[in-house]
Amino acid sequence: MREYLENVRNTVPLVHNITNYVTVNDVANVLLACGGSPIMSDEAEDVEDITSVCGGLNINIGTLHKTSIEGMFRAGRKANELGHPVLLDPVGAGASALRTNTALGLMKELNLSVIRGNISEIKTLALGSGTTKGVDADVADAVTEGNLDEAVAFVKKFAEETGTIIAVTGAIDLVSDGKTCYVIRNGRPEMGKITGTGCQLSGMMTAYVTANPEHPLEAAAAAVCVMGLAGEIGWSRMQEGDGNSTYRNRIIDAIYNMTGEELEKGAKYEIR
Amino acid sequence: MREYLENVRNTVPLVHNITNYVTVNDVANVLLACGGSPIMSDEAEDVEDITSVCGGLNINIGTLHKTSIEGMFRAGRKANELGHPVLLDPVGAGASALRTNTALGLMKELNLSVIRGNISEIKTLALGSGTTKGVDADVADAVTEGNLDEAVAFVKKFAEETGTIIAVTGAIDLVSDGKTCYVIRNGRPEMGKITGTGCQLSGMMTAYVTANPEHPLEAAAAAVCVMGLAGEIGWSRMQEGDGNSTYRNRIIDAIYNMTGEELEKGAKYEIR
Amino acid sequence: MREYLENVRNTVPLVHNITNYVTVNDVANVLLACGGSPIMSDEAEDVEDITSVCGGLNINIGTLHKTSIEGMFRAGRKANELGHPVLLDPVGAGASALRTNTALGLMKELNLSVIRGNISEIKTLALGSGTTKGVDADVADAVTEGNLDEAVAFVKKFAEETGTIIAVTGAIDLVSDGKTCYVIRNGRPEMGKITGTGCQLSGMMTAYVTANPEHPLEAAAAAVCVMGLAGEIGWSRMQEGDGNSTYRNRIIDAIYNMTGEELEKGAKYEIR
Repeated sequence: MREYLENVRNTVPLVHNITNYVTVNDVANVLLACGGSPIMSDEAEDVEDITSVCGGLNINIGTLHKTSIEGMFRAGRKANELGHPVLLDPVGAGASALRTNTALGLMKELNLSVIRGNISEIKTLALGSGTTKGVDADVADAVTEGNLDEAVAFVKKFAEETGTIIAVTGAIDLVSDGKTCYVIRNGRPEMGKITGTGCQLSGMMTAYVTANPEHPLEAAAAAVCVMGLAGEIGWSRMQEGDGNSTYRNRIIDAIYNMTGEELEKGAKYEIR
Repeated sequence: MREYLENVRNTVPLVHNITNYVTVNDVANVLLACGGSPIMSDEAEDVEDITSVCGGLNINIGTLHKTSIEGMFRAGRKANELGHPVLLDPVGAGASALRTNTALGLMKELNLSVIRGNISEIKTLALGSGTTKGVDADVADAVTEGNLDEAVAFVKKFAEETGTIIAVTGAIDLVSDGKTCYVIRNGRPEMGKITGTGCQLSGMMTAYVTANPEHPLEAAAAAVCVMGLAGEIGWSRMQEGDGNSTYRNRIIDAIYNMTGEELEKGAKYEIR
Repeated sequence: MREYLENVRNTVPLVHNITNYVTVNDVANVLLACGGSPIMSDEAEDVEDITSVCGGLNINIGTLHKTSIEGMFRAGRKANELGHPVLLDPVGAGASALRTNTALGLMKELNLSVIRGNISEIKTLALGSGTTKGVDADVADAVTEGNLDEAVAFVKKFAEETGTIIAVTGAIDLVSDGKTCYVIRNGRPEMGKITGTGCQLSGMMTAYVTANPEHPLEAAAAAVCVMGLAGEIGWSRMQEGDGNSTYRNRIIDAIYNMTGEELEKGAKYEIR
C-alpha cells in the first residue's frame, strides 16, 4: 500500500471537485492532508477550463443543482477526452429521482474510473442501470461478515458489467474491478457521526487514482485503508469530553501525518 | 427536559435542511451530535422527494438564492401535506427586502411549527405580517432582565396570533406557544463570536420537535437549553490560547456527549 | 500596527462577503475572530440591500456562478456609490477564462480599494488589463529574496497604474499603493496546507481597511501581518499528532486572541 500513498505525496495531484456545499471544506482539507491539491468549480462555463489544468475529477451529487448537473456532464466529458480519471460519488441515489437519474445519466454518458458509495446507493445504481438484476439486488443493506460472500459477488459483478471500479464503504469496505475484490476492515463506527467522511474519502480516492494511473484498483483500496486507519488513529487520540467535531479534526490530522510505513502496518485487508 | 433529549437519541429523526452555505457543515455535525441525522437539498426538483423521506424540515433563509426560494416553498408544502414539522429561521429578515419578503411569504403560505430567530428578526416578521402592531413593536433590540416582562408579552402574543411556536434567542431566550413562555438563561456571550450558533440551534430544534410530536413547545425549549448548556460546558473546557474556532468544536462536542441527566441538571429555565 | 488592529476591535466593521462556498465558514469565523462581523449574500436581488447595511465589501471569485457574478457587479456598484471599500480576491484568475474575465471586468467597472491574490493571479490581471506589460510580466512565479527587487517594482507599478492597493501574498508578502511597498515576512509554509488561508485574509483585510479609512495601505499590511503572525503562533501550539485541520483551528484562535501589543512585537516588515 505504501507506494500508492507515496505517489500521492510525490506528485501532488490536482483534483477538480464538483461537490456538495455541505462537506466541501473538509474535502479540500483532506485533499491537502493526503498530499494532493483541490480546486472546486461547478459552473458549466468554468468547468472545462478548470478540469483541463487538473489531473483527476471528483463528481459528488450531494446538494445537486440543475446548473451544477450541466457542469458535471461538461467536466466529465472533458476529463474523458483528456484521459483523466473520473470518480462518481452518488450521494443520496435512491433518495430522490433527481439524484438517481443524474447518477445513472453520468454512468451512461461518461467513462467513469470509480464509483464510490454506500451499499444502498450502489444497489440503486445497479438496479437502475439494468445491471446485476435478480438475485444480486437482494444483497442486504449493510455488508456484514454474515453476508460477505454475497456482497463480494454483487460488487464484483457490478464492477465487471460496468467496467468501473466499484467501492462500497461501510462497516466492511469492498473495492473491486470485477476480477479482484479488496475486503477492508479498517475504520470505526463513530466515523458515521461526522458529516461527510464518505465525501472526504471520494476526494482522496480521486487523488490516489490520479497519482497511480497504472494501479487504479490498488490505489482506490489504499485510499479506503488510509481513511479507515485515520479514523482509528484519530479515535485513539480522543480525550475526555471530545466528540464528533474534534474527531473530525483528528481524522484529517491523522491523514496529514500518515506515512507509507504506518499505512503498510495498519491497513487491514484481504483480497478475494 | 431529559425525555426530549432521549427521544431524539432513540428515534434518530432525519431532518431535511434547506440552509445557507456558510454554516451548513456545522448544522450537519450538530444534527449528528444531538442524535439526529441530516440531509441537505435546496433544488426545487429535488426537495419534495427528499423531504418525503425525512421527519422534519428546517428552512433557513441565509444566503437566499432565487432558485432555493422555490425549493423552500415546494419542500414546505410537501412537509405540510405529510404532517412533518417545519421550522423557519429568518436569518437577516429586516436586513434586505428579499429576506423579509421571503420569510413573510413562507409564514403566509406554510403551516409553520416553529420560527426561531433573534429579537430583531422576529420583530421584523411581527411588524411585516401585520400582527402584534403598536406598542409591541417597541420591544427593545435585546431581551434583558429590565425589559423581560414586555418581551415575554410580545413573544406570547406573536405566538398566539400566528399559531406558531416562537423562539427568540439572545442573552435570555424566550420560547412560547402563545400560552406558556419558557425563559431560558443558559449560554455564554462568547457564543456570538462563532458563526452560525443560531443556525445550528435551528437544525437541532427541528430534530427535537420532530422526535417529540406531542410536546413541540417543551422540545423546542429543551433544544435551546441543550445549545446554551453546551456553550457553558464547551467554555469550561477552553484552555490558554483557545479562541472561537476551538470553542466551536467544543460546543459541538458537548452536544455529542450530553446526557439527559446532564441536561436535567444544567437547564436553567422558568416558565411564565 | 497596533492601532489598525484596535480600530477593528473598537468599531466592529460589518463586512459583506460574496465568496466561494469552499472556505466561507472559515472566512466568517476569521471575521468574528479579528473583531469584525460577517454577512454573506450573493443573490443579485439581495446584495444591494445587504451591502448598504455594511461598511465594506469583499468579492472573492472562487466557485463563481453566472448568477453570483451579477451579484458581484451589483454589490460593487452599490458599495462604490456608498463610498465603502471594495476588495477583490481573484481566486483562480489565469486558471479559467471565466475567472480571468470576471476579475478583469470587476477591475474595469468597479472602483476597487484592494486586490489581494497570489503572484500568479496578480500577474494574470496585470497582463490582461494591459497594464505593466513587457518586462514586468516576467516577474517569477514566487516572490523570493532573490527576485524581491523585481517583484516589488512590479507590484508598485501595477498599484500605481490601477490606483488600487495591491497585496501579493506568498512566502514573502508585498502590499503597495504605488508609492510605498510593505515587504512582510510573517507566516509559515504549512499555512499552504490549509484550504482558504488566502480567502480568510481577504475577509479580514476588508475589515481592516473598513475600520481604518484614513490608512488603507497600512491597514491592509497590518492584516497581512496578523494572518502571518497567527500562523506562527498557531504553529507554536501544535502538538504531536496534530495536522492541518487542528492548525486551521489554532490559526483562527490566534487571530481571536491577538492584541495590538502582540502584533506590534511580532510583525516582521520593512517598508520600501
